[in-house]
Amino acid sequence: MIKVGIVGYGNLGKGVEKAITQNDDLELVAIFTRRNPEQMVAEGTEARFEHISAAEQYIGKIDVMILCGGSATDLPEQTPVIAKLFNTVDSFDTHAKIPEFYEVVNTAAEQGGHVSVISTGWDPGLFSMNRLLAQSILPEGKEYTFWGKGVSQGHSDAIRRVPGVKAGVQYTVPVEEVIDRIRSGETPELSTREKHLRQCYVVAEEGANQDEIRATIVNMPNYFSDYDTTVTFISEEELKSEHAGMPHGGFVIRSGVTGNGQKQIIEFGLKLDSNPEFTASVLVAYARAAQRLSQEGHKGAKTVFDIPLGHLSPKSAADLRRDLL
Amino acid sequence: MIKVGIVGYGNLGKGVEKAITQNDDLELVAIFTRRNPEQMVAEGTEARFEHISAAEQYIGKIDVMILCGGSATDLPEQTPVIAKLFNTVDSFDTHAKIPEFYEVVNTAAEQGGHVSVISTGWDPGLFSMNRLLAQSILPEGKEYTFWGKGVSQGHSDAIRRVPGVKAGVQYTVPVEEVIDRIRSGETPELSTREKHLRQCYVVAEEGANQDEIRATIVNMPNYFSDYDTTVTFISEEELKSEHAGMPHGGFVIRSGVTGNGQKQIIEFGLKLDSNPEFTASVLVAYARAAQRLSQEGHKGAKTVFDIPLGHLSPKSAADLRRDLL
Repeated sequence: MIKVGIVGYGNLGKGVEKAITQNDDLELVAIFTRRNPEQMVAEGTEARFEHISAAEQYIGKIDVMILCGGSATDLPEQTPVIAKLFNTVDSFDTHAKIPEFYEVVNTAAEQGGHVSVISTGWDPGLFSMNRLLAQSILPEGKEYTFWGKGVSQGHSDAIRRVPGVKAGVQYTVPVEEVIDRIRSGETPELSTREKHLRQCYVVAEEGANQDEIRATIVNMPNYFSDYDTTVTFISEEELKSEHAGMPHGGFVIRSGVTGNGQKQIIEFGLKLDSNPEFTASVLVAYARAAQRLSQEGHKGAKTVFDIPLGHLSPKSAADLRRDLL
Repeated sequence: MIKVGIVGYGNLGKGVEKAITQNDDLELVAIFTRRNPEQMVAEGTEARFEHISAAEQYIGKIDVMILCGGSATDLPEQTPVIAKLFNTVDSFDTHAKIPEFYEVVNTAAEQGGHVSVISTGWDPGLFSMNRLLAQSILPEGKEYTFWGKGVSQGHSDAIRRVPGVKAGVQYTVPVEEVIDRIRSGETPELSTREKHLRQCYVVAEEGANQDEIRATIVNMPNYFSDYDTTVTFISEEELKSEHAGMPHGGFVIRSGVTGNGQKQIIEFGLKLDSNPEFTASVLVAYARAAQRLSQEGHKGAKTVFDIPLGHLSPKSAADLRRDLL
């Protein structure tokens, strides 16, 4: 059994707790939180809660810590600290800061003699793997990543900061017609506006000017002004009943040529009812890999590019060759 | 530069020759054939041809041999012999015999101190990787592999053996309606007949009884009797102009659940104008990986499950983290 700890108990941590129950070779030892552990109630198990300051007491009792904090402030602080004590897995997803994050975590993990799998999940993660795979196989080609249909937390937050907005949610929607053109062999140059739509569902405060809210949203730089954005006003009840889920997904498509212009298309896609639960499931599979790598004597920070796929499965190499190859 | 040799110069070998020209870090040294090398003319380069018996003279001059023979008789004979002398890559695709093939090749490669990447391509190969990945992430779920639309050599050969048939080609066609059901979240139990159609294009010999040919084909056990099969009679000219290509492709779809029944769907798909050229491109990327593994000191037979994806790319690990993660 691989003994697992969870650090952070938001949507992602709760997803990891549930995902562990789907894997017979993994066992949840404790959930670490910055909140008062005595007030915490587990969602998917009867898990033990501990304050994060107690983590060190679990050295020898936990094989892998799955870090479920956010990328803005939690992980840059927590991963290097925990990586000195345990093998870790995280979903650090600020793409531009990954090289820097890698260096810091690598140093910490090497010092501690542990393996830290960083930046896994689906993007970065599975999408990255497919970008790498497709580029390596089809060096002459063009690549597209589409996200959605799914909820963007950052854009939803931006809506909620608009004066007169009580609540709201934003869906990023890939433009299906463009994807169909790529699937049929075209390799268009696409502007930001041509790839994704942004759909906003907004609950306005009583008496607020809806036209002003709409104009503020669609013209917001960085977030909406470069996109075709729709704003739909709905009731608080409708928001709760129709928009409480956290669906997401997307596509990585590479359209390449071989030989004398033969078109070759590689596509990877996800359609997720729950973004945090899916990301959690990826983290759990990589927790298994982290433990294996550590047992093999590896040390330091690793990414999805460094890890043989076989390490993600509970099955033996011989079984995988027989059943899945 | 990674120095590459090709063994076998059919469609796959010609594809490898062309794929090498798309990769700046690979160099084709020689093509080995059982035919008379002096009568061979290269298709994509000005390659040097050698008789296969001359392979041993290239020890030290070739880093990786890409074996492009067939799985029925060529590879079981050639891979173990060549694996004692060089790093190798092959596309052995008789799924049921992979465990046995692995053992034989592993012994030979370990004796020679080389790395042999076996059974790569797209199925086995990329499809296998996606089966493993999706199963590991979503342990509770159901998986589907669909092939096509594409030419099946085995079924085309079977048609051509029917009395009265002069020439013919068979397409395996996935049933789109069923794929759409799975994509929308259903997990049906599917019979063979429900997953794929078989479309046959047949040139009949003059005076042959078309009804008899049709009946013989659609009732042929193992090949056609379990499928909905269509037989269309065409002229020899039409066969040449419309059916000379070797398209293929397919889908691996896993439909799983997490948490309290949240649906999560992972899909990988290929749409290929040229099956042999695409397979060749996969082999070439794995030739790079074989050389890297060998330089790192690895020995023995390896599959796509054993090899970190980063080894497929000519880019450095730091560049990959910065650009693709």
